[in-house]
This record gives sequence, structure tokens and C-alpha cells, in this order.
Amino acid sequence: MSANTFGQIFKVTTFGESHGPAYGLIIDGCPAGIEVNLDLLKANLKRRRPGQSSITTARQETDEPEILSGVYQGKTLGTPICVVVRNQDQKSSDYDVVLAHPRVGHADDTWKMKFGHTDHRGGGRSSGRETLCRVIAGSFAQMLCQKIEPKIQIKSYSSQIGEFVLAYEETKDIWNTNIDQFTTRFPSERDPGIVKFLELAKLEGESYGGVVETQVRGVPAGLGQPVFHKFKSDLGAAMLSLGAVTGFEFGDGFGGVTLKGTEFHHTMNSESYGGIRGGITTGDPLLFRVGFKPTSSIKDISKKGRHDPCIVPRAVPVVEAMAWLTIADHLLWVRLDKA
Amino acid sequence: MSANTFGQIFKVTTFGESHGPAYGLIIDGCPAGIEVNLDLLKANLKRRRPGQSSITTARQETDEPEILSGVYQGKTLGTPICVVVRNQDQKSSDYDVVLAHPRVGHADDTWKMKFGHTDHRGGGRSSGRETLCRVIAGSFAQMLCQKIEPKIQIKSYSSQIGEFVLAYEETKDIWNTNIDQFTTRFPSERDPGIVKFLELAKLEGESYGGVVETQVRGVPAGLGQPVFHKFKSDLGAAMLSLGAVTGFEFGDGFGGVTLKGTEFHHTMNSESYGGIRGGITTGDPLLFRVGFKPTSSIKDISKKGRHDPCIVPRAVPVVEAMAWLTIADHLLWVRLDKA
Amino acid sequence: MSANTFGQIFKVTTFGESHGPAYGLIIDGCPAGIEVNLDLLKANLKRRRPGQSSITTARQETDEPEILSGVYQGKTLGTPICVVVRNQDQKSSDYDVVLAHPRVGHADDTWKMKFGHTDHRGGGRSSGRETLCRVIAGSFAQMLCQKIEPKIQIKSYSSQIGEFVLAYEETKDIWNTNIDQFTTRFPSERDPGIVKFLELAKLEGESYGGVVETQVRGVPAGLGQPVFHKFKSDLGAAMLSLGAVTGFEFGDGFGGVTLKGTEFHHTMNSESYGGIRGGITTGDPLLFRVGFKPTSSIKDISKKGRHDPCIVPRAVPVVEAMAWLTIADHLLWVRLDKA
Amino acid sequence: MSANTFGQIFKVTTFGESHGPAYGLIIDGCPAGIEVNLDLLKANLKRRRPGQSSITTARQETDEPEILSGVYQGKTLGTPICVVVRNQDQKSSDYDVVLAHPRVGHADDTWKMKFGHTDHRGGGRSSGRETLCRVIAGSFAQMLCQKIEPKIQIKSYSSQIGEFVLAYEETKDIWNTNIDQFTTRFPSERDPGIVKFLELAKLEGESYGGVVETQVRGVPAGLGQPVFHKFKSDLGAAMLSLGAVTGFEFGDGFGGVTLKGTEFHHTMNSESYGGIRGGITTGDPLLFRVGFKPTSSIKDISKKGRHDPCIVPRAVPVVEAMAWLTIADHLLWVRLDKA
Repeated sequence: MSANTFGQIFKVTTFGESHGPAYGLIIDGCPAGIEVNLDLLKANLKRRRPGQSSITTARQETDEPEILSGVYQGKTLGTPICVVVRNQDQKSSDYDVVLAHPRVGHADDTWKMKFGHTDHRGGGRSSGRETLCRVIAGSFAQMLCQKIEPKIQIKSYSSQIGEFVLAYEETKDIWNTNIDQFTTRFPSERDPGIVKFLELAKLEGESYGGVVETQVRGVPAGLGQPVFHKFKSDLGAAMLSLGAVTGFEFGDGFGGVTLKGTEFHHTMNSESYGGIRGGITTGDPLLFRVGFKPTSSIKDISKKGRHDPCIVPRAVPVVEAMAWLTIADHLLWVRLDKA
Repeated sequence: MSANTFGQIFKVTTFGESHGPAYGLIIDGCPAGIEVNLDLLKANLKRRRPGQSSITTARQETDEPEILSGVYQGKTLGTPICVVVRNQDQKSSDYDVVLAHPRVGHADDTWKMKFGHTDHRGGGRSSGRETLCRVIAGSFAQMLCQKIEPKIQIKSYSSQIGEFVLAYEETKDIWNTNIDQFTTRFPSERDPGIVKFLELAKLEGESYGGVVETQVRGVPAGLGQPVFHKFKSDLGAAMLSLGAVTGFEFGDGFGGVTLKGTEFHHTMNSESYGGIRGGITTGDPLLFRVGFKPTSSIKDISKKGRHDPCIVPRAVPVVEAMAWLTIADHLLWVRLDKA
Repeated sequence: MSANTFGQIFKVTTFGESHGPAYGLIIDGCPAGIEVNLDLLKANLKRRRPGQSSITTARQETDEPEILSGVYQGKTLGTPICVVVRNQDQKSSDYDVVLAHPRVGHADDTWKMKFGHTDHRGGGRSSGRETLCRVIAGSFAQMLCQKIEPKIQIKSYSSQIGEFVLAYEETKDIWNTNIDQFTTRFPSERDPGIVKFLELAKLEGESYGGVVETQVRGVPAGLGQPVFHKFKSDLGAAMLSLGAVTGFEFGDGFGGVTLKGTEFHHTMNSESYGGIRGGITTGDPLLFRVGFKPTSSIKDISKKGRHDPCIVPRAVPVVEAMAWLTIADHLLWVRLDKA
Repeated sequence: MSANTFGQIFKVTTFGESHGPAYGLIIDGCPAGIEVNLDLLKANLKRRRPGQSSITTARQETDEPEILSGVYQGKTLGTPICVVVRNQDQKSSDYDVVLAHPRVGHADDTWKMKFGHTDHRGGGRSSGRETLCRVIAGSFAQMLCQKIEPKIQIKSYSSQIGEFVLAYEETKDIWNTNIDQFTTRFPSERDPGIVKFLELAKLEGESYGGVVETQVRGVPAGLGQPVFHKFKSDLGAAMLSLGAVTGFEFGDGFGGVTLKGTEFHHTMNSESYGGIRGGITTGDPLLFRVGFKPTSSIKDISKKGRHDPCIVPRAVPVVEAMAWLTIADHLLWVRLDKA
């Protein structure tokens, strides 16, 4: 069964365990003739990589992607694209303690029970390192989208870290903002303070949850396939497949349930809809939010600074990747709508 | 493409438009030998049917399911199960106004644009009436689950209607509560007051959103398939495929993002997890919430009481159906986990 | 699992047992805007119907298709198309003997063993009557193809019945020949003699196998998706899914294995290729053959003339239907080939 | 779209082009706990490798499989298994002539037209080298089968090479015969003569087709899923997905069409059925044949002995691999048959 495949047309299958030889992915369903932008690929991977600031895990990963198939003379061939990233030669000794003491909040025990095996090493496949495959696949999706609908732009950012909540006003100029200039990817002048707060949490073995908010513009109307592959359904599934994610909402989301209908539906292009009506994109900008629980690698076992005190800043490029994948899949799908 | 298919193993495909001859569904993937409980099927359909109280649309629907295939001598055959429900002889005249005036918040215009056609009648396939197929399919899923894991129980209820929010204490005795004794399915002594509130809204052409909360007990540990068919991902996609749904969260959800990690992860069986860790069920009770926006059939076009002032009470059995479908699919899937 | 679904994009799911209330099918994946030609549908069904000549089973079937969904004002909506055909009120008493005596060559016992049930009635789902669903679905596929590539034409005919083998010369003028003017669909002046031969076989409870040969012209180059959905692979699977089929070959097929390479490959457009090279259609006419074993409803249990002494003549429109389905699926698929 | 995926449950996706960096495959759907037999894997690869006798292409390939994921401590993890094989540093100059002169019988031009690109190198993905991925995947399928049903054995052999046809008597003792002791894998004392015949053909730039026949014993009854994943349908699709294959038949196949029904169906366990009735395995031994056209790399461009004068001997292990894959898929699928 395709448990490790995302998408119906632009199909991505990821593989790899955290301490095996490599991670990687296949894309089956990428059309021929897409220009492969290696700079984009590497830039996206760099944004995901840990160890680049004081508020991420100290764990070092060198993520060198190698394209094994599907690309020739800088363009996609229409055949499966396989990309692998070698894991560094890491000792699994750090993780041996896990054998005896399954880590709170981790998937160590649920996976062991499920498959009946003993891959205790770093959570095996449930490691956050698997997300680098998504970033690579998402980069190819982005290249596809930018060929078909060059106007599409995606902007994700931390909108909540613990109790710090981004104000609506702070998002007004978001399209002109370089999110990465903020260490926490929380686009606010409160960023330095939150950094200090998270540095302290890291020292204390504490952690916090948060929210990644995303805006998308340039998405054409008509994406989404009723009734079980509505755009909201596929987008939600994409986000909920990420580790630590506990909630998804779009438009006014849970906040909108207290509005009166006459307030919510004031116009056909109401921002309340988040760019999706009847499960189908309207052509208006998309808006959605993804909730993350506090990082689970806390205190007792994280003796070496091996945890992000809040995963949200580093989740930003991963959320963007999953959004690109969802859009790419549906951009191709609409080619089948009409005779 | 399988836009209208839900599930990977217990596969349900629904069909039908609101004013065509019939709605229906096929289940391909139901094992042989399940006893078909027609009373259960009819009871579930009755719970979804409109026109049974002062706070639902006055529209009358007689939902007589006919099983066309897949069942013999009271048991499933292992072949595709098809069930159809005839639509009543309804005039489409009520809906003719829609032609000229696409309804705010409805899918009339997005669908028309997408497929290039003119099925203006009652929203066509985007009608809420499509959910009766889900309730039928969900009933078969329930029969399957109760054969394989008889202890599984699902309890959904309105936990928020507009600004009325159910208190945690009011859910304490939920397993001993008959939700349907409350007209609003909001299990609280505030129910009569909310009924009055919604009757007024109906008169005024106003509407409200809300939340359906669900608890599940008896679910075995190990359901969910990493990394793209985690239980949370499939459950979320199921709920987000429903009309009017704008958010999904489980466990502490968005509320949990403000907790410290040391609070959230106080134990392996923390209620904060909502019964899911690493994307896989832990064997603890499930808890999740589904957010609904205010009903869109408001004022201007609802001249005949043809709207639910809040869809949440009637969505309760539909949410349960989608939960049964997700569980049934994963109960079969785990048969493939080990050699 | 989708055991009853054919196709990757133009997806057809069939349902129904021979003595249940109805047969039917859903097409999920037919684009919007295809004109529905009911005359074509009925004509195709009529060609498959038994009881129309002295060499088919005497069993009477009235095949009245009812379209339940997916069509509005004469055009497809882009939503799932469901069509059902009611079974006549047939006594299952004729088949009660089967209970005690599983029929030689039938699937009665293999199905019973597999699913553990007792649907002995007429073979249940393994009945040849299931092919009417394929003819209906194939008719919609034909309508789609004729919209997208109007030049495509398919011509199937009996090329072998028992030891009667059609000569190459007899196929020279095949595109100007009305196959149905021959009772055996064996386009030769030997037809009346074969009819006599089969009438005798029917009397004696004897049966014969044969071959359906098919030519297709107007198929564009480029259909087929390497490496597991090559056109030949999908076409072969389509044919081998039919009851009684025991072999499939295209171009020179098994006959070509004795040729020298320099004879076989004398030109790029060699007829030897059967219109397929590298698994992909070349734009040249297709040629393929489907082998059928002798009908299994013979002597001992066929007390009432309830068997076709040779299934090949009546299989002709079913083979055509499966060819239309394969072509329709791939005509849509190539829309995804290039950026 | 999953053009490069085989199987419904034990899903194999292959990737790689003949002159790209590597070939490889992912298996998604292999249960946890299968012991990985590397010796078996290497032995199977060795059987497929060219350059081992005077009648195969002189092209040298070193096929060193590297397992990148899905295996830990000698057992499968239940996660995706990725295996890659690096291509040797080959000059594409040998193939530059192809640019100007598409090779007769090859897929060079059909692929180029289809995807609009210029991957002329060695046929790109249509190269026979892709079959090594199938042999690797088939080896894992074999390991799975031997765990679940240890009695299953598969024996393929050349039953026809050009006009040399294996006699029925020569297959009588097939289960005690080491096929590989015959250079042509044609288990007959005529083998040395055929070798000489093919050596001459190679010198002359001539080629021949042939047939691979396969017997399988120990297959349990009940494999195959009506109506579109009957065992015969999936097995046929598997074989027809191979390059150069132009026909598939099982049991008496095309030869059986001339039999009378009373001869063909003389008993429930008739060898005529080839072990499959109603599309489902009966528990009797399987028998099927796969027809190959003459190799297309002939005379004009094969200046360096770079062709197999008959592909049949080297296709033997590939046919076995596809048979293992089909059986593995269905061995898992039957777990879903009953409640």
C-alpha cells in the first residue's frame, strides 16, 4: 500500500530512516520539460537545515541532494525523479538510551508495537529529518507551478510561538517582508525577545508549540476535486501528515464559528473563506494555519541540546513545501476537468 | 481520477446530484461475511434527516436505501456493495432563482466555472444531501468495525453553537448520555435556550457556525500508516471533505500550542495527545474537533425556511460516519503490517 | 481495495450479481461536457444481448439502462456517472442444482472457497452478465474518444471459431464490412456453415473456443505510459479480465516469434508491431487478438439451452468496449505528459 | 500518476535511465519482519546479468545493489525499501549515432515524440537494463512469499527459440532440472546446437524471438480479485510490461481454442486451466507462456556485439521476478477477503 505516497497525479514517495544510509524520494508524475532549478532546491534545503541559529537543535546535518534519475540536460524527462541525501556517519550510541526508555511524546513505542521490530534508532522513520524529502519534492513542485502559473507565491511564517501571537497588523505588509531575517520567522519586532525566551527554554529543557500561518497568492480559481479531494481536504491532509501537527484551519477557521452568517458571508470574495468555497479555490488569496504541539524531545533525554525548543520556525519551509505539493497536484488535475 | 472515492482499502465512492434521480455509493473493499444490520443503517439515516425539529430546514427527504449488490442472505459477499436512495420528485423551480443569482457562500459559481456547465439545480453535487451517502457507507463501516473490534464506540456531539460553548464538566458523563435527547445535540441543560436562539435565527434568516466534538473509545493501538496516511492525516482529510468545515484539530489542538512541553507531555498517555502519537493510535480514547462555518443559505434566498440556522446538530451523525469510515479503513490496513 | 475498478484516470467500477436486483457501474473521471449518445449506448447493449440468434443462450435479458447521476441536459457533468440495469425477476431454482454440483469450468467453487460464502446463484458476480456493465462504460468511453479524437474506429470480429480460421484475405476489406450481418461475426462466406455447426454443438451440449481479432485505426501516437502502464500492458490486462479469456497477443504475437529479426523489423512502421513500439502507440493501426476457451456451461447441466456453444461471437462487442476503455484512459493520461 | 508502479499492495516503483547515475526501486507495502536474503538477491541478479556467455550482449554491467532504507538488522522494517544500483561510467558516445538514426524496433522515436525531449542515450528509460530493478524487487517478493507460503516454487525456461520448440516430454522432469546448466535455458539436449545457431546469428547481426514458459507449484487456492484484478489479468499485465513481449497465454491458451469443450473441461482440475479458474488460482500448478519478438538491436547499429541474438534466455529470471511480484501482491491481498 502507498502509505508513503502523497498526491494523486504529482505523486511523491519518500523513504529513509534517520540512521540508515540515506533519505530520499521519488516523484512519479512530473511532466517532461520542467527546468530544474538547483539553486532553488538548495536554498529551500538550507532553510530547513538545523544548526543555523541558537534556537535550533545543535545536531549537524549536511544535506547534499543527488539526483539519480528523471532529469537530463537540466530538464525533467517525464520519467520518475529520484533524489537521495546521504546521512552522515552518525553513531547510534546517542540513541541507545532510547531502547530502555522510550521517549515521552515520541513515536518510539507506537511504531515498535505496530511493526513488531526494534528500530529504536532516533525514531527510525518518524524522525523530523524525513521532512527534507518533502522540501526536495516541494521544490520540484514549485518549479512545476512556476512554469504553469508563474504568479503563484507562497509565504509562510510563525504566527504564534507559545503565547506570543502575531497581530493582524503585523501581517499587512507580508509580501514585502523577508521572513528569514527574523530568527524565529515571526515577522515582528518582538523577534529578538522571543529568541531569548527560546534560548532559555533550550537551556532548561523546556519546549513550546505554535502556529505556522500561510498566505498564497496567484492561485487560479478551480483547484480542488469534489467530493473527497476538495482542495481543503488535500491541503489539510498534507499538513496533518507532518509530525507534531495537531490542527489545521483555513480562512476564519475555528475563529469563524462564532461569527453570524451575515457577518461571515458578507460578500462572495469574503476573506472569511480563505480563498476556498465549495472546496474549490476561488482565485482569491489562500489563508491557512497549522498548529504544532510543543516539541517532545525535552528534558530527560535531551542532554546535548538536541532539540528545537519550538519547532515552528524550522517548520516554515516544510509547510511551504507541502503547500507547493498540494497545488502542483491540483494544477495538473484540472487538465482533466473538461472534454 | 478517484475524486469521489474515500479510503485506501475500504473504498467508498459516492455519486448523485441533489435533483437527479438518485444518490448512492459503492463500497469496494468490504470483506465477505459481515452481517448487515438494516436497523442500524436506518437509524443512522434517520439521525441525519432534516425536517425533524424546529431548527432544521423544512425540506422533506424520504431516504429509503435500496441495496443493489454485494449482500446475500444478510451478509456481505466480498463484492462491491451498491446502495441507492431515490430523490423525491422535486421541482427545480425553487432553485431557478439561483441561475440568475449565485448564492453567497455556496459552491454554485465555483463549480460552474470549473466544469463549464450549468447545473444550477440545488448546488448539484455540492448539496448537503450528498452526506446521506456517507452515513450509509459509514453504517457499513460501523458493522465491519463492530465485527472486528466490538469495543469501539464513537460519540459525537455539538460542543459549540455560535457563542455557546460546552464546558469540560458537561462532557464528563458523555458515554452515558443520549445525545439525541437534546434537540441541538449540545448535551447541556442549556439546550432549550439554544433551540429558541436558533428558531429566532431561522426566522431572521440568520445563521451560526459551531463545533462538533468527538470521542472514540475502544480503538486498538497501532492504527495509522506513516508517513502520509497517519491516522490524524486521514481523519483530518475525512472531516475536511465535508461542506462548511473550516478546521480540524485533535487532542489539545490549537489550544495546546500555548502549553509548555513539560505540561503537554506529562505522561505517555497524556490526554493532550488525543489518542494519537507519531500519527498512530495509542489505544487511548480519541478526541477531536471539527469546526463549521455559519450556514450559507441565509436571508436573501431562503424564503421558505430552507436552511438550518446552524448545521452543527445535523452534522453530528455525519462526523460519526466519517470517523467509522476512517477507522474501518485502518482496521483492515493493519492486517498488512507484519509478515 | 479497488478490485472492481478499471483504469487509472477514466475509472470504471462495476457492481452487481447475476441474480441480485441490478447490475451497474460508476465512472469517476469522465470530464465534463461530453455529449451523451443514448442511441449509441443502446445499440452497443443490443449487440451484447443474448437470445438474438440460434447460436446463443436462450436466456432472455432485457437490458434497460438507467442513468442515475453525472449527466444533465444531455451532457456529462464531470461528476460520477452511475448507470444501473435491473435484473429480471428470475427464479434461482434453475441454479439450485449448482449448490450440490459445482459446474465444471465455472467459478462456483473457487469463489465459494475464497470468500467463504454460499452465493451459488448463477455464479454470482462471475456471471457473463457482468459484461453488460463493461459495454455501458465502454459506450461512454467511446463518446469521450469520439469527442477528443473523432477519427478513432474500432472493429472487432471472430477470427477463429473452433477450427474455423479466418484467412488474411478475408480481413482485407474489414473497414467496409458490417460484422453484424454475419451471425457468428466471422466475416466470411463460411458463416452459414459455422452457424449450422454451432447449432449442432448446442443440441449436443458441446462447445468451442475461438479468437476475437481487433483492428483500431485513428489512434494517435504516444498513448501508453512506461514502464508499467504501457499501452500493451493495460490493453492486455483489460482483455484478460474477461471470463473465458486465456490469451492475448498483438501485432505478430506468438506467430512472430519464429520470424527472423530482419524480417520482423523491416521498417519502422512494420505491421508486425501491431501499432505499438516501446509500449507506446505509433499512430499506425492497432492489431490484437484475444483467445477464448470453450464455453464451460456444457452438457451435464445445460438442460435448457442455457449456453452459447461458442462465446466468441457475443464477446465481440465486449472486446470493443474494453478497447474503448483502455484508449479513453490513455487519451486523458497524455494530457499530463508535458509541462 | 503511478506509471512506474506495479502492484496494488506490495507496490514497486522503479526509476533510472540507462546512462544516468543509477537505477533503483522502492517497495512500499512490504510487511515488517521479512528476513532479507542477500545471497538470493545477488544470485538472481547474476542470472540476469549480460556478458556471461557467447550468446548475450558483450556489454558489461556490474550490478551492485545498495539497500538505502527499509531494512534493519537483516529484516524489513515495514517502511519503504529503496535499493539502488549505480551505472558504470559509460560513454554515451556509442549511442550518439542514435540521435541521427533512431534504431529500428526501438522506442527511441516514440518516447521522443511523446515527451518532447532528447534523451537519445541508450533508449533512456526503455533500456532492457531497467529489468534489473524488477529482479531486485522480485527477490524481495520471493522472500515474502517464502515466509508466508514456503512451498511456492517458480520455474521458468526457454520453451521456444526461433523455430526450436521444446517438446512436452522435455518438460516432464522440470522440477528436478537445473535450467541454468543450459546456456540457452532451453532444457533439452538440443541446447548446444541452439547456442551455435545463436552465435552465428550474433555474427550476422540477425536475431530471433521465442517463448518463456513458466510453471509454478505450491500456490494456494484463492489468489486473484474479481473482476479487474483477476490473477490472470494481473499476471498478464506484469508480463506485457516487459520490453519485446508481444503475447501472454496460460493453460492451453491459444492452443486450447480448437479443443472441444468436452475435451477441455474433462475435470475440475484440468491442466487446460493452467491453475486458474474464474480468474482465481485453484491450488493446482500454474502454467503460462510469454512470447518475445526478435531482438531489435540488429545489424545496422550493433557494431560491437551489443545485442542478444535472442533475448529469451536472459528474460527467464525477469519473467520469474514478475511472477513473484504478482504472487506476493495477491498473497497479501487475500488477507482482506474475509471479515
